[in-house]
Amino acid sequence: MQASAFVLFGATGDLAKRKIFPALYNLHLEGKLPERFAVFALGRKPFNDELFRVHVAESLGRFSRKGKENAAAIADFAARIQYHVLDARDPESYIRLKHAVEKRETELGLPGNRLFYLSVAPEHFGPIAMHIRESGLGNEDGRTRLVIEKPFGHDLASARSLNDTLGRAFPSDDIYYIDHYLGKPMVQNLQALIASNPVLKAVLNNHYVANVQITASETVGVEARAGYYDQAGALRDMFQNHMLQLLMMTARHSEVYDKRKIIDSVYPVNKDEAANHIVRGRYAAGEIEGNAVPGYRDEPGVDPQSNTDTYVAARLQLDDPIWRGVPFYIRTGKRLSEKSTRIVFVFKNPLESHSSEDPVRNYLSINIQPNQSVDFQLNLHGLNGEIQPVPLHFATDAEEVPEAYELLLFDALHGDPTFFAHWDEIELSWKWVQPILEAFEERIVPLHAYPAGSNGPLAADRLLAEQGFAWVEHGQGQAVEEETIGESLAYVY
Amino acid sequence: MQASAFVLFGATGDLAKRKIFPALYNLHLEGKLPERFAVFALGRKPFNDELFRVHVAESLGRFSRKGKENAAAIADFAARIQYHVLDARDPESYIRLKHAVEKRETELGLPGNRLFYLSVAPEHFGPIAMHIRESGLGNEDGRTRLVIEKPFGHDLASARSLNDTLGRAFPSDDIYYIDHYLGKPMVQNLQALIASNPVLKAVLNNHYVANVQITASETVGVEARAGYYDQAGALRDMFQNHMLQLLMMTARHSEVYDKRKIIDSVYPVNKDEAANHIVRGRYAAGEIEGNAVPGYRDEPGVDPQSNTDTYVAARLQLDDPIWRGVPFYIRTGKRLSEKSTRIVFVFKNPLESHSSEDPVRNYLSINIQPNQSVDFQLNLHGLNGEIQPVPLHFATDAEEVPEAYELLLFDALHGDPTFFAHWDEIELSWKWVQPILEAFEERIVPLHAYPAGSNGPLAADRLLAEQGFAWVEHGQGQAVEEETIGESLAYVY
Repeated sequence: MQASAFVLFGATGDLAKRKIFPALYNLHLEGKLPERFAVFALGRKPFNDELFRVHVAESLGRFSRKGKENAAAIADFAARIQYHVLDARDPESYIRLKHAVEKRETELGLPGNRLFYLSVAPEHFGPIAMHIRESGLGNEDGRTRLVIEKPFGHDLASARSLNDTLGRAFPSDDIYYIDHYLGKPMVQNLQALIASNPVLKAVLNNHYVANVQITASETVGVEARAGYYDQAGALRDMFQNHMLQLLMMTARHSEVYDKRKIIDSVYPVNKDEAANHIVRGRYAAGEIEGNAVPGYRDEPGVDPQSNTDTYVAARLQLDDPIWRGVPFYIRTGKRLSEKSTRIVFVFKNPLESHSSEDPVRNYLSINIQPNQSVDFQLNLHGLNGEIQPVPLHFATDAEEVPEAYELLLFDALHGDPTFFAHWDEIELSWKWVQPILEAFEERIVPLHAYPAGSNGPLAADRLLAEQGFAWVEHGQGQAVEEETIGESLAYVY
Repeated sequence: MQASAFVLFGATGDLAKRKIFPALYNLHLEGKLPERFAVFALGRKPFNDELFRVHVAESLGRFSRKGKENAAAIADFAARIQYHVLDARDPESYIRLKHAVEKRETELGLPGNRLFYLSVAPEHFGPIAMHIRESGLGNEDGRTRLVIEKPFGHDLASARSLNDTLGRAFPSDDIYYIDHYLGKPMVQNLQALIASNPVLKAVLNNHYVANVQITASETVGVEARAGYYDQAGALRDMFQNHMLQLLMMTARHSEVYDKRKIIDSVYPVNKDEAANHIVRGRYAAGEIEGNAVPGYRDEPGVDPQSNTDTYVAARLQLDDPIWRGVPFYIRTGKRLSEKSTRIVFVFKNPLESHSSEDPVRNYLSINIQPNQSVDFQLNLHGLNGEIQPVPLHFATDAEEVPEAYELLLFDALHGDPTFFAHWDEIELSWKWVQPILEAFEERIVPLHAYPAGSNGPLAADRLLAEQGFAWVEHGQGQAVEEETIGESLAYVY
C-alpha cells in the first residue's frame, strides 16, 4: 500500500472515538496500514499531541475489539497521530495545516497521498471540501481522496447541490461516500455466497422466489439524536441510504451486476399512489425488554407535535430479468421488538403438497446483525403426513467479525471504491424516494402508531397479506427448533 | 385396523427377540395394534405360553426403546401371545395349529385375517408357504398375508424359483418382501422431503447434480454369520437388495415414481466389462477403534481360501430424463472406518468461481444411520478471497426414532405394500446383478484387499477419480466445522 497521510476532521467526535480510531488501530495491529503513515487529527478542542494520544488510547481500550492486547502496541499506534486545533471556517487554519502536513510528509518521506475524512456535521461537507481545495491542501502531486458519510442531502435537490459543491473541490472518482452497511462482511460476501453455491444460484430468481424481505430493525429509540432525527425520520435516516443499498446488493446478479442498474430498474411510486406501497409509522409508549419506554413524541428534544416517521415499510418491484414479478418488502424502524438486520428470500410453496395445509415456506435468511449467520428453512415430513419445518443454521463467531469501518478504511486507503456508495446510486435513490417524501409531508400516507417493543404497525402486515405473504420474523426458525421440533420429531422419525 | 392374527414362524430366533417383538410391543403401547389381536408364536423349543411370555418380557426390557416403561404394559402385551411347538416339516403340525388359531379367533371374534411372518432360514420359505396353503391355514375367508425377509434367492434363477413356489401358495399381492432399509423413516420420507422443498426439487436433477453417492458402511466384521456370509458376500448380502432399493428410492421422482421403472432404467453392465464399473474388496487385518482385528480369511468359520467379497463399489448410470448423465456411485462393506448409511447428492461446481482453486462442492447429505440427519454443504467467502465450506446440519433426536420394523409391521397389518420390496424390483435387481455375480465367480473382477478400519480399497477411489470426483466421507462437513472453521472465520467475518 502506498504511504499516506490520513487527515481526520472531527477527530474529537463520537464517530472518531467509537469507530474510526478503533478501526485504524485494528488495521495497524494486523499490519494493514502502510509502513509510512501519518494521522492528522483535527478539532476545535485545545488538545496537544500528548493529551490527544492519551484520549485515543482510552477510546481504544473501550471500543476496539483488540483494545486490550497490549499497551506497547497502543503507544506505537498513538505515536502516528498528531493533533492540530482547526477552525474549519478559517482559511488561515488550512494554510497552517498544509504546512504542518508538508513538514511531516517530508520527515517521513511520504509522497503526498492524502485521505481527508470528514467526520463532521453535513453542513460543513461543502465548505471544508472547498477550503481544502483553495488552501492547496488537496492540490498535491500525490493522490487525494475525500471520505464522507451520510446524510448526503435531505432531498433530491439538496443532494445534487452537495454533489455539485464537492465536485468543484474533488474529482468525482476521489469522493468516497461511506455507507457503513456496505462494510458488513456478510453484505460484501452476498454475491460471492450465491456465485460459489450453485444450489443457491439455481433458486434465487423469480421461478422459485415468492418474495424478498429486507429488514433493519432497532430496539433503541431516538436516543440523543432528536435534533437531527426529528428533521429526518426513518425514510431519510435509514431507508434512502442503507435500505436501498441493501436492496441493490441483494438484487444484483451476474447479468445485472451494476448497482445503478438495479436501483434504476425499481418501478417508481408516484406521490398519489404512495399509500398503496408504503407504510409509515411512529412508535408509541410501550415496553422494551420488560422496561416501560416513552412514545416518540415524549422523547427529550422531540417536538410534541412532531409528524416524523420512526418506521417505514415499502413494497418495491423491479423491472429486471430475474426479479420481475417478485415483490421486495423493505422495512426499518426504531423501538421494535429486536435488533436485527437481515435479508430473507422466501421461496414459493411446494408444487406438490401431500398435506391439506400449506407447509411452511422454504426460506434462506442472510443475517447481518447482530450476528452474521445463515438460516435455511426446509421441511421434513412426519409419519402422520404432517410437514415439520426444520431450520438449518450456521452462525459465525461474533467476536471475530471485523468492524465495517476496518474494511472500508482499508479500501479507501487502497483506493478501492467497490464497497462505497456511488453518486449515481445516491441520486437515483433520492429520485425514487422524493415522491414518497412529498407524500409524507403532504400527509397523503397515514402515520400509524405502533407500541414500542412490537413488530411495527399492523398496516405493514397487511402490505404483505394483500399478496398472500407474511413477514418472516427473526428467530422464527430458531423458535421452532427450540420449542416445537423436539416434541414433534417424536413422531417425525 | 382390522382384527387379526399374527402367526410368527421362528418366534424363538434372534430377529424375533431383537426386532419383531419389540416392534409389536411399541405398536401396542402406541395403540397402533388392533383391539382384537392374537399372536401365535411358533418354534421347535419346548416353551409353554407362560415361559414364552417371560422370555418375551425379558427381550423387551433389553431391546425395546420403550421396554422400561412399565411391567403392567408388558404383561398386558405378553397376554396376547400364545406359544405353539411346531415342526415346520410336519403337515400334522399345521393342522393342529389351524385348529388352535381357529379356536382363538372364535374366542376373540376375529374375522380370520392372518399375517404369516416367516422369520426362518430361507430354505424353509417355500415349504412353509406350501404347508400353510395345503393345511388350509391360509385358506380362510379373511385376508391372509405372507411376510418374508432376505435372502430372496442366491441368484436370478433361484429367486425366480422361490417366487414361483410362493406364488403357488399365496396370491402375489399378498406376499410382502421386507427390506428393512425401506422401513427407515428417512428413506420413507426422501421423496416427500424433496416434494415439500422447492429449493431441493429445483436442484435435484442433472442440471445441477454432478454425481450421487449411496453408502452403507459397517465397522463390524462377519460376526457369527460366517456360514451364511461366506457363501453370499457383500454383493448378495447388501448390494442386490438394500443398496439397489436405496438407489430406487433415491432416483425416483414425480415423473418416474415407480421403482421398477428406475431399476429397469439402469444401464446393464456385462460380465466382460464389469471390472470397469465394479470394485470388489475383502478386508485384511487392521484396527477398529484402536483394537487390532483379524482379516476376513482369519475369521472363525470362514474358509481360509475364501474368495468372498466383503466390499462392493459400483458406478451406475440411469436412462432417465432427470438423471441421464449423472453417475450413481454405490458402495457397501464391512470393517470400514465407520458405521454409516447415507445418500449424498454432490452438486456441480460453481459456474463462476472468483478463486483460482476449486471451491468445495455443494452437497446435500441425507443421513440414514446411525443418526437420521441432513447436511447441506454451502460455501462462504473470506476477506482474502478464499472460499470456506460451511456445513448446515440438522439432526433428529435418535432416542425418538421408531424402528424400521415398527413401521413395516404396521404397514403389513394395514395391508399397505408401499414400503416393501416388490417381486418385479427384486427380479430386475437380480437381473442387473447376475453378470456381476458371474464375473466375480470367474474372477474377472479383481478382489482388492483393504485394511480393516480404512475407507475401503483404493480402487474405489479411482472409480470416482476417473471422472474427476471423490467420495464425500461422512463427518467431512462436521470435521470442517470443528477443526477448520473456528479458525478460518477469524478472517472470514
